Amino acid sequence: MNYTDYLDLHHGRFILELTEFLSIPSVSTAPEHAADVRKCGEWLVNHLRKIGFETVELHETPGHPIVYAEHCHAGPDKPTVLFYGHYDVQPVDPIELWTNPPFEPTYRDGKVFARGATDDKGQVFLHIKAMEALLATTVLPVNVKILIEGEEEIGSINLTSYIEQNKERLACDTVVVSDTPLYGPGLPSLCYGLRGLCYMEIHVQGPNRDLHSGSYGGSITNPANALCEIISKLKDSHGRIAIPGFYDDVIDLSVEERAEYAKLPFDAEAFKSGLDVPSLFGEEGYTTLEHISGRPTLDVNGLHSGFTGIGAKTVLPAKASAKVSMRLVANQDTEDIAAKFTDFVHSIAPPSIKVDVVNLHGANPVLVERTGKGMHAASKALKDAYGKEPYFTREGGSIPVCIIFDTILKAPTVLMGFGLQDENAHSPDEHFDLDNFTIGMKAASLFYTYMGE
Amino acid sequence: MNYTDYLDLHHGRFILELTEFLSIPSVSTAPEHAADVRKCGEWLVNHLRKIGFETVELHETPGHPIVYAEHCHAGPDKPTVLFYGHYDVQPVDPIELWTNPPFEPTYRDGKVFARGATDDKGQVFLHIKAMEALLATTVLPVNVKILIEGEEEIGSINLTSYIEQNKERLACDTVVVSDTPLYGPGLPSLCYGLRGLCYMEIHVQGPNRDLHSGSYGGSITNPANALCEIISKLKDSHGRIAIPGFYDDVIDLSVEERAEYAKLPFDAEAFKSGLDVPSLFGEEGYTTLEHISGRPTLDVNGLHSGFTGIGAKTVLPAKASAKVSMRLVANQDTEDIAAKFTDFVHSIAPPSIKVDVVNLHGANPVLVERTGKGMHAASKALKDAYGKEPYFTREGGSIPVCIIFDTILKAPTVLMGFGLQDENAHSPDEHFDLDNFTIGMKAASLFYTYMGE
Repeated sequence: MNYTDYLDLHHGRFILELTEFLSIPSVSTAPEHAADVRKCGEWLVNHLRKIGFETVELHETPGHPIVYAEHCHAGPDKPTVLFYGHYDVQPVDPIELWTNPPFEPTYRDGKVFARGATDDKGQVFLHIKAMEALLATTVLPVNVKILIEGEEEIGSINLTSYIEQNKERLACDTVVVSDTPLYGPGLPSLCYGLRGLCYMEIHVQGPNRDLHSGSYGGSITNPANALCEIISKLKDSHGRIAIPGFYDDVIDLSVEERAEYAKLPFDAEAFKSGLDVPSLFGEEGYTTLEHISGRPTLDVNGLHSGFTGIGAKTVLPAKASAKVSMRLVANQDTEDIAAKFTDFVHSIAPPSIKVDVVNLHGANPVLVERTGKGMHAASKALKDAYGKEPYFTREGGSIPVCIIFDTILKAPTVLMGFGLQDENAHSPDEHFDLDNFTIGMKAASLFYTYMGE
Repeated sequence: MNYTDYLDLHHGRFILELTEFLSIPSVSTAPEHAADVRKCGEWLVNHLRKIGFETVELHETPGHPIVYAEHCHAGPDKPTVLFYGHYDVQPVDPIELWTNPPFEPTYRDGKVFARGATDDKGQVFLHIKAMEALLATTVLPVNVKILIEGEEEIGSINLTSYIEQNKERLACDTVVVSDTPLYGPGLPSLCYGLRGLCYMEIHVQGPNRDLHSGSYGGSITNPANALCEIISKLKDSHGRIAIPGFYDDVIDLSVEERAEYAKLPFDAEAFKSGLDVPSLFGEEGYTTLEHISGRPTLDVNGLHSGFTGIGAKTVLPAKASAKVSMRLVANQDTEDIAAKFTDFVHSIAPPSIKVDVVNLHGANPVLVERTGKGMHAASKALKDAYGKEPYFTREGGSIPVCIIFDTILKAPTVLMGFGLQDENAHSPDEHFDLDNFTIGMKAASLFYTYMGE
């Protein structure tokens, strides 16, 4: 039996296993889910042993554990591929907007609905199944190392030191990651650019306690009003970020890149109506596709102050806070941007309140080589699996480990994604298309095969 | 035994009864406390019967019930006084900042700590005890009607229709209310001005679901950023409210009033350090005392959007909302201001998002007559009880019923308060000074006595 037949034959079992994997609520940011995150790591360890990996470890960190496995029997003349993924997931709120409970995977319309379905458990699992198929029917044509972390959604805080301390062990020719979307349904793509992230928190302190807005209102600066004033000054009316020096290190999109962007199939009207917004809005001078992947951004991710329940409470709140994050593009540096953000917020804050700015986490942007053996094998595998040449694209999100692999392991990363843009990663009703799960297993098998040729 | 001795003799029991009254969590805005609000009304009904009121009713409304009682045996040549108060209280959050549970009244440092202690249960109760003392030792020197509602903290939504439907029954010469503070410890005051209120909610809708800030960030207007932009435009840098026409109907403080304000003892430095703010800030051209009672305001009472838990969630939120209220001064009209606010918010909202503005509730401001029998009796009673002439002041908060009494019952309202400014009404650790409770009972007894002379 060849591996393709094996994948077909065992598809039903794979779905049951995927369901089990998605059922574990491995929310890395929530302290109350720490045990679940560990359970999920242990589940992977057991699973990798079962399919034939001998060296499999759950590596302890000060946070959530890292899963490491290797199967290096292809011989020294064969390349080594490091597969990277993450088994942790985003929080689920607003929970009331989910059609099914987020950790009770539900299959409908050819999709699996669950937190982590597309980001990133579903995509991790299709690689594992591709390896299982190869191991069960032939041999692994390359040396394979597997690294699956449990802290990607909270900034991979313990991964860098792990990679630094294990750089010989992790040595490889190519890294492969599946945590990016296809360009569109049936349209494979290879991503060569990822945005970085600089995630900040602003805390404004007004009076030392909540006050009666009638007795005190008018005499002091309201911290919630002040917070709004600060945030309103972070961007101008042209969609440009107003922080001094913010754009200093941005490599502008080249004429060639902009021409490629222009060729990509994109329906702005459908994009707009899919989001149900009155109009799109982005930085002046750039297209929507450029806005969502080639240019930096600034977005409020959360706001909180005072009374937010039903009804009216006449309170002048003591505090107000915001989570504000910026997506960065090459060659912006997250620490530099955090410092500029902090300085600017302090410079525009009214002197009648106290402001504290906290750098929650960050990641530098990545621009990946478009040539080389890994990109070539991935391009061929995608073409065979989907019957279409892949597009070369940039992605708006961040996969901070890519820069770590580049810096520490000196290995290029192939970003071969099988998700879809509208699969609600980070939102209620996250899902993953089962066709892409199936084709993805085949494409991954082909990728490892072509890498070994 | 005269009523003063009676008050002294039974003081211990009064404290036990007050504790019982304060223990009932009559939070009117919280649907889960509806039964507690009713229980509190029933408690008052039973208590008023016990001290000698014969006509006592719990009047049903579509919301929380109204307590009504009367004792009109002083004769037709004696004036009729209507005592008004409220038995409902504000919500308790942030609950974690309370030293003792808010509905387990605790006595320390000569104060009682509980939600409602000063606003308004403690002050209601001292009137009831004054009446008890008069009834037990002599006669009620005036005809007394009692009206205690359970919806003051949610805008007295069912009171107006009740008063309209019962205006003959409620007919009176003077209304007396104790829901305002003393000018300062040991410094009695009579309040002749109250601010009105216009409490609005702004709902901004961006995309139809929460989005991944990496995949979509940059291409659409973020509703939280848009909300901040809207709020930042509601006031200018001089502390003036920027809504067109907002000040049109404001009666500016007269030269005489400003001269009286200037004479009031006030320590701005102590006020500032008591709130622990870097500096005070208010409308240019006015003093702090004028800011907190004589001029209109605009304050954010609550902000909410996106992810507000611990850690970082890279979400581009679908919605953002704010509660914004304005304190009004004579002769601003709450409906007129609500309309101007709504129009202005729509006019400044970015066209790339949807905005909904809701008028939650409102009350018109009040300016009360400084002369007349009621004011005279109250002035004399306060002078006797505290040994000091009362100041005439304005108060920053709202007691919307005063205007209803003026309009429907054509009766002036005497605002004789016994609270203190820093007793944390609407905040954690609300409390009421027991000295003022004790002196207040005496002052109230004197007030009813002088009214009958």
